[in-house]
Amino acid sequence: MGMETHKTEDRHQSEYLYRPDILQKLDFNKSPAVFNPRISTVNPGADWMVVRPLQRGDFDKGFLQLLSQLTSTGSITRKQFDERFTQMKISGGHYVTVIEDKRSSKIIAAATLTVEQKFIHNCSLRGRLEDVVVNDTYRGKQLGKLIVVTVSLLAQELGCYKMSLDCKDKLIKFYESLGYKLEPGNSNAMNMRFEEDPS
Amino acid sequence: MGMETHKTEDRHQSEYLYRPDILQKLDFNKSPAVFNPRISTVNPGADWMVVRPLQRGDFDKGFLQLLSQLTSTGSITRKQFDERFTQMKISGGHYVTVIEDKRSSKIIAAATLTVEQKFIHNCSLRGRLEDVVVNDTYRGKQLGKLIVVTVSLLAQELGCYKMSLDCKDKLIKFYESLGYKLEPGNSNAMNMRFEEDPS
Repeated sequence: MGMETHKTEDRHQSEYLYRPDILQKLDFNKSPAVFNPRISTVNPGADWMVVRPLQRGDFDKGFLQLLSQLTSTGSITRKQFDERFTQMKISGGHYVTVIEDKRSSKIIAAATLTVEQKFIHNCSLRGRLEDVVVNDTYRGKQLGKLIVVTVSLLAQELGCYKMSLDCKDKLIKFYESLGYKLEPGNSNAMNMRFEEDPS
Repeated sequence: MGMETHKTEDRHQSEYLYRPDILQKLDFNKSPAVFNPRISTVNPGADWMVVRPLQRGDFDKGFLQLLSQLTSTGSITRKQFDERFTQMKISGGHYVTVIEDKRSSKIIAAATLTVEQKFIHNCSLRGRLEDVVVNDTYRGKQLGKLIVVTVSLLAQELGCYKMSLDCKDKLIKFYESLGYKLEPGNSNAMNMRFEEDPS
């Protein structure tokens, strides 16, 4: 019984948010990004790194701590993480993708592709790049480029007609080098932030 | 049997993409938008107009023809429309909202709220405004403002921490009047468009 439970838990922790095999199909020759040395999703540059979908067990691999380098995450419990993971999986369209350092069992980079369903353009799909973050201590390994190109090619593989992102001024050149463009007269990202309801 | 089939079809055609009652709760006092005269989701300004979620039967009410005023829709069959409607409903997170002219049974305005699930900000939600369109012949009735404020308040009602949109330069002032802001140094919308796979 104890062993049975343990096995179940192992399987649970390795549960993927989305099918990992789709990442094996990505053709880096389709991306205008220049890698030096050449790396890809399947060959990320070192045998101790792996690029893969988020797993349920990444709660214990520092995924949320990595995200907190990007913005406020709040204090998310295991239960909240599990529920969000399950909701994302049921809904589909949420492709949270990570790079793990297998030596330390830590998540060192992450990016999310979300896919919106449309009626326009023949009931098409539109991808969005979200929440890109790389651990500061892993600079110089092209991991930012690698994770962004991975989810961008994933959007194309899934049939999106375009992929969009919002970014700060200082990141424009980076994203241009990966094939993203500012469209003249049509490149404004606006936001409305909602106040907390005091009730 | 014939009548039974007819009834079933009627119900089918009136099927909503999402629960319509949530639109009754929206508090227009929460929006900085100024309406003159004052209208709202519940009181859109004339008894022949109704603001509601997309229905399956809107295929026959000119919904796709309205969208084609915005951008290319291609030639979408009833089967394709039905399938997309069903997929959106199963996934959740796709709040296509319309205004119908009940005199002519035509859709005269539409806007979509999509809701992304996040881990950041305490497993929050982020709204996106998409595919806003108003029939040209219904100008001067504040319908653009009405449909955008409706889905913006809907995002807040659903618990989104922010709502985002991409727009053309000429629409910045309009969206600013509704509470949207360009954030200095962080308001760039970039796109990558994928070529058709020739295979």
